[in-house]
Amino acid sequence: MLPAFASIYFGFSLQNVRWGEIMHVSGAISLGLGLCVLSSTAFSTAKEPIEPIEPAKITDAAKVELGKQLYFDPRLSKSGFLSCNSCHNLSMGGTDNLPSSIGHQWTIGPINAPTVLNSSFNLAQFWDGRAKDLQEQAGGPIANPKEMAFSHELAVNVLETIPQYRASFKNVFGDQNITIDQVTDAIASFEETLVTPGSRFDQWLKGDETALTQQEKSGYQLFKDVGCTACHSGPAVGGMSYQKFGLIKPYITDNPATGRAAVTGNEYEKFFFKVPTLRNIELTYPYFHDGSVWDLGEAVDIMAELQLGRTLNKTENTQIVAFLKTLTGDQPDFKLPILPPSQPDTPRPDVK
Amino acid sequence: MLPAFASIYFGFSLQNVRWGEIMHVSGAISLGLGLCVLSSTAFSTAKEPIEPIEPAKITDAAKVELGKQLYFDPRLSKSGFLSCNSCHNLSMGGTDNLPSSIGHQWTIGPINAPTVLNSSFNLAQFWDGRAKDLQEQAGGPIANPKEMAFSHELAVNVLETIPQYRASFKNVFGDQNITIDQVTDAIASFEETLVTPGSRFDQWLKGDETALTQQEKSGYQLFKDVGCTACHSGPAVGGMSYQKFGLIKPYITDNPATGRAAVTGNEYEKFFFKVPTLRNIELTYPYFHDGSVWDLGEAVDIMAELQLGRTLNKTENTQIVAFLKTLTGDQPDFKLPILPPSQPDTPRPDVK
Repeated sequence: MLPAFASIYFGFSLQNVRWGEIMHVSGAISLGLGLCVLSSTAFSTAKEPIEPIEPAKITDAAKVELGKQLYFDPRLSKSGFLSCNSCHNLSMGGTDNLPSSIGHQWTIGPINAPTVLNSSFNLAQFWDGRAKDLQEQAGGPIANPKEMAFSHELAVNVLETIPQYRASFKNVFGDQNITIDQVTDAIASFEETLVTPGSRFDQWLKGDETALTQQEKSGYQLFKDVGCTACHSGPAVGGMSYQKFGLIKPYITDNPATGRAAVTGNEYEKFFFKVPTLRNIELTYPYFHDGSVWDLGEAVDIMAELQLGRTLNKTENTQIVAFLKTLTGDQPDFKLPILPPSQPDTPRPDVK
Repeated sequence: MLPAFASIYFGFSLQNVRWGEIMHVSGAISLGLGLCVLSSTAFSTAKEPIEPIEPAKITDAAKVELGKQLYFDPRLSKSGFLSCNSCHNLSMGGTDNLPSSIGHQWTIGPINAPTVLNSSFNLAQFWDGRAKDLQEQAGGPIANPKEMAFSHELAVNVLETIPQYRASFKNVFGDQNITIDQVTDAIASFEETLVTPGSRFDQWLKGDETALTQQEKSGYQLFKDVGCTACHSGPAVGGMSYQKFGLIKPYITDNPATGRAAVTGNEYEKFFFKVPTLRNIELTYPYFHDGSVWDLGEAVDIMAELQLGRTLNKTENTQIVAFLKTLTGDQPDFKLPILPPSQPDTPRPDVK
């Protein structure tokens, strides 16, 4: 029964795609969501494919506070100049709003920095999912020579010379010694709090009919009808599966990233990327893994054409863009963290 | 009568210095302060040469909020990556804790970034005082090709495409058009709020005898007795005059900055720099205009030797350092600003 339903749902756009490929990658999640979409079209009482975001439940406030300091601390980089917040800037939708990020010695990174907002909903981290969770991700840029260019050992060495950090780590982890696992654990705990509830769309989902305009509601209906929710669903409106970018028509780019294939070694996963969240999409330009598109309307047209084989008219595009802008939620709401000073024996930054 | 007093005060350290030079540069301020020091030694009821910092009085909250956003907005730079806060990081004592700052394309700047904290007390801005006030200073880095590498015109062009900024500027300045003078005025208004009252030293100044330890009080007395307050006085414990760095013995550095002479063209003002504030000095390492000294104790020894011809013993140095650390006040206490998104017609950042 499932394949029958699925083929009805996918039928309009997947003529040229091998069924096994879809089944392998999308798996039960997308298929299940496909069914949800079908249901919501058929029955008005059905559950929506997008779920509201709930505020973060903080169970260890001290760990979150420590993680927040570390997130803003450029001493986790070789130069002492770059922090997590440099490229995942919480003043700017958790991104740097650049096609790809600037790293140590102004090295231009290979791929667009995904937003950290709502990243705890992702099935894995990075565009290619090579980190299984936020903690594993947090260790990546610190030691990447094109990003923060440090090493885990050197970062820990710096922190260990700073009495206030030693006290915070001891308080949170009960340990005399600081480890990189503690560092990334604390950063991940902070990042888990970076969810954005309260969007107008979520207000509507929760029953406030006045939260959206008619144009925005039409946009959402169209978003479902044309099939966007097959991938962009769940609380983060994405992040739950890997999908091929250029499913119906190839995506032309000079960015060499092959996505999921580089992680699994599977040729058929070439150009499969983690579906990005659409939460706060109006803040997280430029779009796509190569950061090549700055205009949300243009991005919507490209996605419709390449992924769904569909050409949207101007009205449809405008409606979907209007809907997408209702996904902007409450942005990070906390005081700028104050960092404890280095000491005379703290290893010094090296900008070279 | 004044020269007689002054010669008593300066006598111990100025054997090799032309009196006219001192008179010219220090002028009434330092001389007056020298008298204060003498008085405070002679009479216990005398006024202290350091005054407490009072909390900022905010008269135009909307302008301050706008200035805060602009201060954190990297779109005032060519690359879209560097903001005022990149080098005057409010999480780190209003500095970058680097010998000299990193600018566009990782250009290493020529001089140590002074703290923005309490900078409204300075007689002028930059180490050489080439900007008369905070507003004039704010325009400097934006257009400096080694710093933010933008132009005033381009920065304004960016802001004008962002509806939320247009609305904020109109609200604050009542004008349809955004100008660079409005931009720097707003930034300066925000910076004027960046004062740090509440230090333990100020608590003591206001009558709380328990706010300082005996060691810290001894350090302050020594700070006055050896003559530091001749220049490091007033609410910011500095910032009120230009002084020659290397007064008694020359300061050896490979930094080519000539200080005040480069502004005035006066040869006798070579190596004259604005006396830096000592407020929050434990946070604003590394020290001096070349950022060459990381240890506060070492900086104190160098200053005593080069400026006062005095060799401090270990106990004296420890006491003065202990006193200086009581000058750390309340750090910036506000929520991380959230920036309004660019629009499709916003000029795009250029990292090249």
